[in-house]
Amino acid sequence: MAESNRAWIFEQPPIRDDFDTALKFRDWPMPEAGKDQVLVKTLYLSLDPANRRWMAGPTYMPQIPTGLPMWGFVLGEIVKSNSDRFQAGDIVGGVGTWSDYAVMPAEGLDKIADLGGMPLHAAMGLFRGPGGTAYVGVVDIGQLKAGQTFVVSGAAGSVGSLAGQIAKILGATVIGIAGSAEKCAWLTDDLGFDHAIDYTREDVEQRLRELCPKGVDVYFENVGGAIGNAVAANMAKFGRIAVCGLTAQYNEERASVGLDVMPLLLNGCTMQCFILYDYLDRIGEATAKIAGWYAQGRIKYHADITEGLENALSAFKRLFQPGAPHKGKMMVRVDRAAN
Amino acid sequence: MAESNRAWIFEQPPIRDDFDTALKFRDWPMPEAGKDQVLVKTLYLSLDPANRRWMAGPTYMPQIPTGLPMWGFVLGEIVKSNSDRFQAGDIVGGVGTWSDYAVMPAEGLDKIADLGGMPLHAAMGLFRGPGGTAYVGVVDIGQLKAGQTFVVSGAAGSVGSLAGQIAKILGATVIGIAGSAEKCAWLTDDLGFDHAIDYTREDVEQRLRELCPKGVDVYFENVGGAIGNAVAANMAKFGRIAVCGLTAQYNEERASVGLDVMPLLLNGCTMQCFILYDYLDRIGEATAKIAGWYAQGRIKYHADITEGLENALSAFKRLFQPGAPHKGKMMVRVDRAAN
Repeated sequence: MAESNRAWIFEQPPIRDDFDTALKFRDWPMPEAGKDQVLVKTLYLSLDPANRRWMAGPTYMPQIPTGLPMWGFVLGEIVKSNSDRFQAGDIVGGVGTWSDYAVMPAEGLDKIADLGGMPLHAAMGLFRGPGGTAYVGVVDIGQLKAGQTFVVSGAAGSVGSLAGQIAKILGATVIGIAGSAEKCAWLTDDLGFDHAIDYTREDVEQRLRELCPKGVDVYFENVGGAIGNAVAANMAKFGRIAVCGLTAQYNEERASVGLDVMPLLLNGCTMQCFILYDYLDRIGEATAKIAGWYAQGRIKYHADITEGLENALSAFKRLFQPGAPHKGKMMVRVDRAAN
Repeated sequence: MAESNRAWIFEQPPIRDDFDTALKFRDWPMPEAGKDQVLVKTLYLSLDPANRRWMAGPTYMPQIPTGLPMWGFVLGEIVKSNSDRFQAGDIVGGVGTWSDYAVMPAEGLDKIADLGGMPLHAAMGLFRGPGGTAYVGVVDIGQLKAGQTFVVSGAAGSVGSLAGQIAKILGATVIGIAGSAEKCAWLTDDLGFDHAIDYTREDVEQRLRELCPKGVDVYFENVGGAIGNAVAANMAKFGRIAVCGLTAQYNEERASVGLDVMPLLLNGCTMQCFILYDYLDRIGEATAKIAGWYAQGRIKYHADITEGLENALSAFKRLFQPGAPHKGKMMVRVDRAAN
């Protein structure tokens, strides 16, 4: 067991995208596990747009306390267990911290099952969060049917890239919206999307009008703002919007560009917001389906891995930079030996 | 049969609220009924915020053509019928024009059934449009349950005043948002709302936080804009928004104040837009329920009647003026003899 620990400390909620004053990288005392707690060595740290919201105020979780390590989803190895549920060497997933080591309550952790030859990080990047969110958003919230037109924004991200592939498997025409020509080429050439729109260079509303003259049946919303309005203006009669995220406004206290509801009213559309925490009973089905599709070669999984905890912040910033290189699930390999 | 006809001619789509150049009052030729058409003498003309949208572009109806009489819902008496379905003297309802007389296709008209002693205008102000819209919005779209907290904006309007009363009958705590102290007093003192908020003098978001610390379960949205955001910020977990209208932005090409979706995302809320035309199969149940409640004295109906077709425009403008006197269903008595 290593003697030293390092952590990104959450100093204060960021103003807009000033993450440099919000997070500071420090040596940090090795924590000690108390009753029903475990000491976890972080293998992978997940970087998600939702982390930005956790900094800003209470969400489905309390606001992150200042002066302590920043929170994030992690995969880790148990070093010491004070719980009957786990023993040293177990690989677990849950909400941990941006640190080499963390003490976590045992009850919040899940043991990671055998992944059948896939790399460990697939437990964080393909199954669980991203896969569960994509599946629930397309199937339960979007209620997508074969033959419909499906649009997803943030399409090159972890959830978006899976949502589009799932929609394709379910028989939809799939259009992705992403922030660079490279990402768009990845969506159509590698992932099988029917079309992709580069919002940094194309007029999204106009392109959608051309690509879907009958309108968009299901929109998987990851970004909000101007892109959300461009899709809303193209919804089909009785279209459905599944709101998973609003990354365009995560750095704002109040939305600078709100949603124009008028086109939704004229078409009798429904917009349903969802958080995976409210659909945990659906994770089992989602995981089984995605594993099967992956085994059949019908879903591709791409991890965007940054090496080293010290580089977590620069990677996190890329989540909020239009056009920054970023494909698939963004994560940090904290333990260089992790597969 | 009168020899002369008058009409409000739709000259051009209004810029914002410049209705004076959009509509001109003129003598107009007496129309002649063709095959399967009827000549109708207008008794009552309905004035609705939706009429503003009809001017602006295609909706669930084609855009109103310029140079011809303005469209509106009417109650009228058939003067001459070229249809097997109707005969002279029948009282009918449907989409007519702002004129003393109009020729209408027989297939678009409904014969008005006996109203059991109620004034004829209740067929336009209590049943059909307003009652059907209020009932579908509360029951089908809002899915309101007893014990929940229900908020309605545009609460002193035809639909809002009925929606709040229906929600009260169904066992909800009911809060209305309206644009004057007089309207608010009417809601609480006459119609039995639990609370009313005067948005011209009170901070709606703050007042809702005080009145519903557990959040709003169902919001019946008639106005949008800043009021819509104030309610959205107070929604309960899994709350539902039934969007019936967006009067705050009917005079805008694009919403100047869009909806901040973030609080809806954090609470897993659903927003469903609806237009009564898509729920015509629900009108029968709505009418039966409302008639029963009215007979029991549990629903009050108020018609805001302007006398004389020549005064239609000044009454219509009041629909869009915050604080203008206006309670219940706004209409024009076109035939002074109508009951």
